[in-house]
Amino acid sequence: MNNKLKVVVIGGGSSYTPELIEGLLHRYHELPVAELWLVDIEDGKEKVKIIAELAQRMIKRKGVNIDVKVTLDRRLALENADFVCSQFRAGCLDGRIRDERISLKYGMIGQETNGLGGFANACRTIPITLEICKEMEELCPDAWLLNFTNPSGMVTEAVLKYTNIKAIGLCNVPVIMEKGIAQLIGAGEGEFIMQVAGLNHMIWVRKILHQGTDKLNMVMDEILNGNDPLVPSNIPPFDWPKDLLKDMGMIPCGYLRYYYISDDIMKQEQAEADGEGTRGEVVKAMEKRLFDIYKNPDLAEKPKELEQRGGQYYSDAACELMASIYNDKRTVMHVNTRNHGAISGLPDDCAVEVSSVITKSGPLPLNVEPFPEDTLRLIQLMKTFETLTVEAAVEGDLVAAKRGLILNPIVNTGTILDEALQETVQENLDYMPQFRWMFTSDSVSNH
Amino acid sequence: MNNKLKVVVIGGGSSYTPELIEGLLHRYHELPVAELWLVDIEDGKEKVKIIAELAQRMIKRKGVNIDVKVTLDRRLALENADFVCSQFRAGCLDGRIRDERISLKYGMIGQETNGLGGFANACRTIPITLEICKEMEELCPDAWLLNFTNPSGMVTEAVLKYTNIKAIGLCNVPVIMEKGIAQLIGAGEGEFIMQVAGLNHMIWVRKILHQGTDKLNMVMDEILNGNDPLVPSNIPPFDWPKDLLKDMGMIPCGYLRYYYISDDIMKQEQAEADGEGTRGEVVKAMEKRLFDIYKNPDLAEKPKELEQRGGQYYSDAACELMASIYNDKRTVMHVNTRNHGAISGLPDDCAVEVSSVITKSGPLPLNVEPFPEDTLRLIQLMKTFETLTVEAAVEGDLVAAKRGLILNPIVNTGTILDEALQETVQENLDYMPQFRWMFTSDSVSNH
Amino acid sequence: MNNKLKVVVIGGGSSYTPELIEGLLHRYHELPVAELWLVDIEDGKEKVKIIAELAQRMIKRKGVNIDVKVTLDRRLALENADFVCSQFRAGCLDGRIRDERISLKYGMIGQETNGLGGFANACRTIPITLEICKEMEELCPDAWLLNFTNPSGMVTEAVLKYTNIKAIGLCNVPVIMEKGIAQLIGAGEGEFIMQVAGLNHMIWVRKILHQGTDKLNMVMDEILNGNDPLVPSNIPPFDWPKDLLKDMGMIPCGYLRYYYISDDIMKQEQAEADGEGTRGEVVKAMEKRLFDIYKNPDLAEKPKELEQRGGQYYSDAACELMASIYNDKRTVMHVNTRNHGAISGLPDDCAVEVSSVITKSGPLPLNVEPFPEDTLRLIQLMKTFETLTVEAAVEGDLVAAKRGLILNPIVNTGTILDEALQETVQENLDYMPQFRWMFTSDSVSNH
Amino acid sequence: MNNKLKVVVIGGGSSYTPELIEGLLHRYHELPVAELWLVDIEDGKEKVKIIAELAQRMIKRKGVNIDVKVTLDRRLALENADFVCSQFRAGCLDGRIRDERISLKYGMIGQETNGLGGFANACRTIPITLEICKEMEELCPDAWLLNFTNPSGMVTEAVLKYTNIKAIGLCNVPVIMEKGIAQLIGAGEGEFIMQVAGLNHMIWVRKILHQGTDKLNMVMDEILNGNDPLVPSNIPPFDWPKDLLKDMGMIPCGYLRYYYISDDIMKQEQAEADGEGTRGEVVKAMEKRLFDIYKNPDLAEKPKELEQRGGQYYSDAACELMASIYNDKRTVMHVNTRNHGAISGLPDDCAVEVSSVITKSGPLPLNVEPFPEDTLRLIQLMKTFETLTVEAAVEGDLVAAKRGLILNPIVNTGTILDEALQETVQENLDYMPQFRWMFTSDSVSNH
Repeated sequence: MNNKLKVVVIGGGSSYTPELIEGLLHRYHELPVAELWLVDIEDGKEKVKIIAELAQRMIKRKGVNIDVKVTLDRRLALENADFVCSQFRAGCLDGRIRDERISLKYGMIGQETNGLGGFANACRTIPITLEICKEMEELCPDAWLLNFTNPSGMVTEAVLKYTNIKAIGLCNVPVIMEKGIAQLIGAGEGEFIMQVAGLNHMIWVRKILHQGTDKLNMVMDEILNGNDPLVPSNIPPFDWPKDLLKDMGMIPCGYLRYYYISDDIMKQEQAEADGEGTRGEVVKAMEKRLFDIYKNPDLAEKPKELEQRGGQYYSDAACELMASIYNDKRTVMHVNTRNHGAISGLPDDCAVEVSSVITKSGPLPLNVEPFPEDTLRLIQLMKTFETLTVEAAVEGDLVAAKRGLILNPIVNTGTILDEALQETVQENLDYMPQFRWMFTSDSVSNH
Repeated sequence: MNNKLKVVVIGGGSSYTPELIEGLLHRYHELPVAELWLVDIEDGKEKVKIIAELAQRMIKRKGVNIDVKVTLDRRLALENADFVCSQFRAGCLDGRIRDERISLKYGMIGQETNGLGGFANACRTIPITLEICKEMEELCPDAWLLNFTNPSGMVTEAVLKYTNIKAIGLCNVPVIMEKGIAQLIGAGEGEFIMQVAGLNHMIWVRKILHQGTDKLNMVMDEILNGNDPLVPSNIPPFDWPKDLLKDMGMIPCGYLRYYYISDDIMKQEQAEADGEGTRGEVVKAMEKRLFDIYKNPDLAEKPKELEQRGGQYYSDAACELMASIYNDKRTVMHVNTRNHGAISGLPDDCAVEVSSVITKSGPLPLNVEPFPEDTLRLIQLMKTFETLTVEAAVEGDLVAAKRGLILNPIVNTGTILDEALQETVQENLDYMPQFRWMFTSDSVSNH
Repeated sequence: MNNKLKVVVIGGGSSYTPELIEGLLHRYHELPVAELWLVDIEDGKEKVKIIAELAQRMIKRKGVNIDVKVTLDRRLALENADFVCSQFRAGCLDGRIRDERISLKYGMIGQETNGLGGFANACRTIPITLEICKEMEELCPDAWLLNFTNPSGMVTEAVLKYTNIKAIGLCNVPVIMEKGIAQLIGAGEGEFIMQVAGLNHMIWVRKILHQGTDKLNMVMDEILNGNDPLVPSNIPPFDWPKDLLKDMGMIPCGYLRYYYISDDIMKQEQAEADGEGTRGEVVKAMEKRLFDIYKNPDLAEKPKELEQRGGQYYSDAACELMASIYNDKRTVMHVNTRNHGAISGLPDDCAVEVSSVITKSGPLPLNVEPFPEDTLRLIQLMKTFETLTVEAAVEGDLVAAKRGLILNPIVNTGTILDEALQETVQENLDYMPQFRWMFTSDSVSNH
Repeated sequence: MNNKLKVVVIGGGSSYTPELIEGLLHRYHELPVAELWLVDIEDGKEKVKIIAELAQRMIKRKGVNIDVKVTLDRRLALENADFVCSQFRAGCLDGRIRDERISLKYGMIGQETNGLGGFANACRTIPITLEICKEMEELCPDAWLLNFTNPSGMVTEAVLKYTNIKAIGLCNVPVIMEKGIAQLIGAGEGEFIMQVAGLNHMIWVRKILHQGTDKLNMVMDEILNGNDPLVPSNIPPFDWPKDLLKDMGMIPCGYLRYYYISDDIMKQEQAEADGEGTRGEVVKAMEKRLFDIYKNPDLAEKPKELEQRGGQYYSDAACELMASIYNDKRTVMHVNTRNHGAISGLPDDCAVEVSSVITKSGPLPLNVEPFPEDTLRLIQLMKTFETLTVEAAVEGDLVAAKRGLILNPIVNTGTILDEALQETVQENLDYMPQFRWMFTSDSVSNH
């Protein structure tokens, strides 16, 4: 690793980038970034330019020396990089909205990382991510890939299985949970250890170790009494099934609502889609407003409006992860990494999201105590869905896709699944070259 | 075991009993039944009398010597029994219809053994079955319990876990599959070995060994070409997802349609409920007609109308099972028995449905080769649902019930599940004493 | 499979062959053998001629029509064969004696299939067996290979892993146990089911099902009272540790003495080696006497002296296995076959010795109930030794050899193991081409 | 936990105690010990007095305020303790010498924690340890038990399984390895993470993470080139089998020599026993000399002669563990704790020795990547030996003892094992009340 670091951001034009800049500035004393490369595609040219200018203003105001570069030439950016942050969105927000609308049309929950939407997102994102990794193998083979492109767990699994790149998947869900817990137990950052385990967007808090005792039950009681600062703002604030959580003795992340109270979420989503718009549509409008703010030449800090965006803490976590690796800090962070026995009952080579000690050699997962049987079954089921989806995304294997989707608890099966799947592929064909065979005349003989 | 056997039928007034009588008469040379006790409850008094008279006419016509006894006194019947056949229906057909209607009301598949209906049925049936077993432990501790009361897998698991009775669960699904396969490959009974494995109403054909080759692919092709005599008449004849089955290399039993093509089944059920009535309602009408036929004093054989009833071959399989045990025949039959490692990845003490060599000491399961990962995950998930349901049914544990139901792929979760569960218990309270605590004032403190 | 069968015997000049002939004649009504090919090598030419002439006299006396052919041309024999029986001994009895003497020299038990001797035997035998299988893949790809060449378990595993040949490993140990048990419980052949499981020469009787009860404890009591007809005559008749067996609830095969009472066996072997000679030396003398008897032109039956030879019932079991396959008899036999989940805790693709239903498609193993933990650990350990030995035998991998031998409980470790291993390879170099690299100048760079 | 700590040392008269005192003084700034209780038994009265006086001189010289108390009344000492260090030796050094001599007499390796000696030691030590824990449950239920009494793994497992006390087992083996590695890679304490895993006295180094790379291969090369500072001085410095270690990719702890090169160790032990005496005898003489030194009223520090004693770093590690717990330091230490999935393939409730993050709530084990199959088999085997030994030690179950010992690779089986076991129990009867039934008239009926 160099003394002065080169950090590359794929999808540099994202509205989240100002948080990343802020995080880098905040840690400049321990993370000496020399060059920050913002990479984007032709369609994102204007946005990335706005971001870069804001970044430069922020850096200047802070009075440090980081060289911000903007490019559409990914290879140029990747050369000799130390850290590559992947935060692009394949198909942009329109892709996300399409996923939501198609799912809803067929009576299923429409979401960016869960269900049919998560499948579609994986199929769009994984081929591009593998392309990036191939370039990294050539241009910066020792760099770390920090992936926070969704669906982060499946994307990370694809990278770990199909490339030689050192990859860590990151998510803001555990970060938000940790901040919520800190608030509930009145402890500062780093004063307690929250241990989570599961899959991306399907984790449970297993321990909250603070001053020699496990505060899990105390936090649980607060949550069940309606004081729940652990759920991201993009998930509607329904009540948890109280007796279920108490009996489990674990605190599920907010996304578990999609599984524990599917019908309520479904109705809520349908109402939103019929009203203010789907989450993707809301976010699209929000982004537009954000970029208008970013353009302001007087703005030289992360605007507070960004916090309503939903992905808060993401980028800050990425900066902390870089700093922990660079400085061998041994912070406990919650990352997607190779299982290797961390969660018993899952394959060694799959990706899991687990609390890990972050070292200069990457994450060392903490051991996960055995899950209750019902939770383990759900995790195993979803992991098989994920693994089949990764396979489908890489190989263009429609049967693997269907075998996976049939397992997914929030995907409906039968004729409507066939139709929804067909429509999903057709509408995304530009981003899913692996499935183009389906629309050629010799499709049958090929697959 | 006695030289002259005493066979007891719990639920003797069932419309299926004539098939059982026919099966016994057909095997009289190898299964020397001396006494056949038909046990029923007060409400079934009239029906069991009709059945007994028909049985006596059938026996007389055959010219053999079986003493038919009718009683409402179960203990009297059980004393020194050799075989106890359990085929009662807790809550009668009205219970089944209630299950169907409540499920449909909440937008879920309404079925006797699957989903919320299967849960309700288990909660009604298991307490009574355990009562019977306690009596057996006292009055006929060495007798075999052949259970074909639904849900057969969960009922058998409850007996194996909570009593000392030797129990075997039986189902007509594999019997129908075996007969269908015999027809497709042109082989006589016993000329081939069909090996199935899974859980009750969730099995797959793994091998079809005939004349030194495995005919599975040949049978699969016939089925996928629309020639499918393997599915019971009570499951609507939808097409299987072709690519899925081919890729799996296993033939699922008809009930897998509830999981692989849920939405089509749901729509079909809804249409039936809005039209000719639910399956339970259709059966109720059919039963009425059957008993009118049974009453005919000139009838001295199983009437052909019984075959449309849906449960065909059930009773014949029970007779074959008795004959195989009694004569140590080592026939390969497909039964619910203790797992004990037969299916890798499931607990040792749970019940599974597997092809077994039937000996005088009971079933010796054939080893089951490892399942494809996705199928294993589904089986594991459903087994955890079943085990939690058994626990809920025995302990009256509502949280166990919910933890189980949340896993079930054809049960919807959220507020509607709470409501549906509440209504299910309330409507069945006469048959679910274990849940009465929910409706007493101190419910909270008790559970 | 042909109507008139072609049976090939590799190692046709073995002294056991007359039992095989007797077995074939005994089953001629159900196993219509047209041609019996006795294959041997140049060194065995004289012996195989003697055997062939005896076989012809036996056949003639029986008055049936089997054409006996003798050849040194294995390919000629294999062409269109239906069954190939492998009973050769790589390196002949001198190889066996060498194994025994080298082991004893280094203070270890010297035995044909256990410990260092078993390892050496595997390394001599597996390369030849794989060569035979390659020829079979070309000349008779649908033939069954019945392997009773020792070490039968490892040889079978090598065939199952490295070739496409349908192979079944056979051993007389369970056959002798079954006959001993028949005698103790007073039951005829086929009247009871003995279920065994484990690895070749490391099996335990798990069940003895007779007339509806498990007679295991009854048989155990007889054995512990000194009435033990279950042990082959080549294993010295020591007492079992009584409390151990009772506590286990399983009856170990005689070879477990090598593990449960190693020191006594060691002392006995040492005494024999210093006195009448090792087992191999005794057998060599015995064989000489047998062939003198076989030469007698008046002899037209299996001479009773053969029974003292040690391998009794081997060949008869092979004939029964052929008859069971040919006629789809569904007999329960005890064979070495692919594990595939039969014994939980072992890899799917390894070979295990388990009671199986023999069909025209080969063996269907009975499910094996979980072993007690300590026994499972021993089985797992030994299977890893076996698998590493197979790898070493195929690849010539000396480190795999050592990693395996270090695990073996009756192999001593340290400098003496290095020396013993070196001597073993050096003395057997003609039969272990895979290890020749060790004695060339560039050995280090090659491996 | 109190602000001013009460530390209790069971076996306070041990010659190691000065190192403990030194460790406490060294950490006084972060570990504010108010009272140090040295507990011993009548026979150790004189020794503990010598130690206490030395301790007081050391404390005085350092100028801090720790109150040293000596007592034979354990209950008095335990009351309200914060940390209890267990370092007693049941049966004193004479017990250890007896173990060594009995083992050697029967041709087996004689060692304090391995083989038959380890079994005997466990049977003497576990009953006393459980007695201590029962008192702790009453008198200081929240105290931590730091066990470094050997055999530390089995003793810790017994405490975890049979009591409610928070216990951590400690050993100096990984400490010595870590110091050796630090020296080889030129890194200071805490600058790298060595991850070990296995069982007490049977661990392997899995990772050596330093400055972003794994230095394991570098350290391995040094060791194989004869530069091996990782092995405790009480294990003779034989060469490792080079190819074995390279192939494994893990560095075994010195005690693995007992398994990988048994015969060499055996011969060495025999030579020592015939010469200067067994290790126990050497240590006994050494202890005598040490106490002569300790008596010197001018001595006010840990004398350098203690370092030759063999157990160096033990007590210092114990102090560091106390400091890490008390201050929630999150140091990575190597401790015996409940497995709970840390090592896949071992029961959840057994004790394993694994690198863990030490928090105020105790150790959080790092996840252990899957072991190579052969190593896993050895670990599983030894764990079953240990678990059966714990069972035997607690229940006085001789069959469990034998089932365990038969598995142990360095225990010989057969008549000599029976004799050795009998002699072991008889000679230790004062310390093995659980086995007294063997020598009463109704022994048979009792067990």
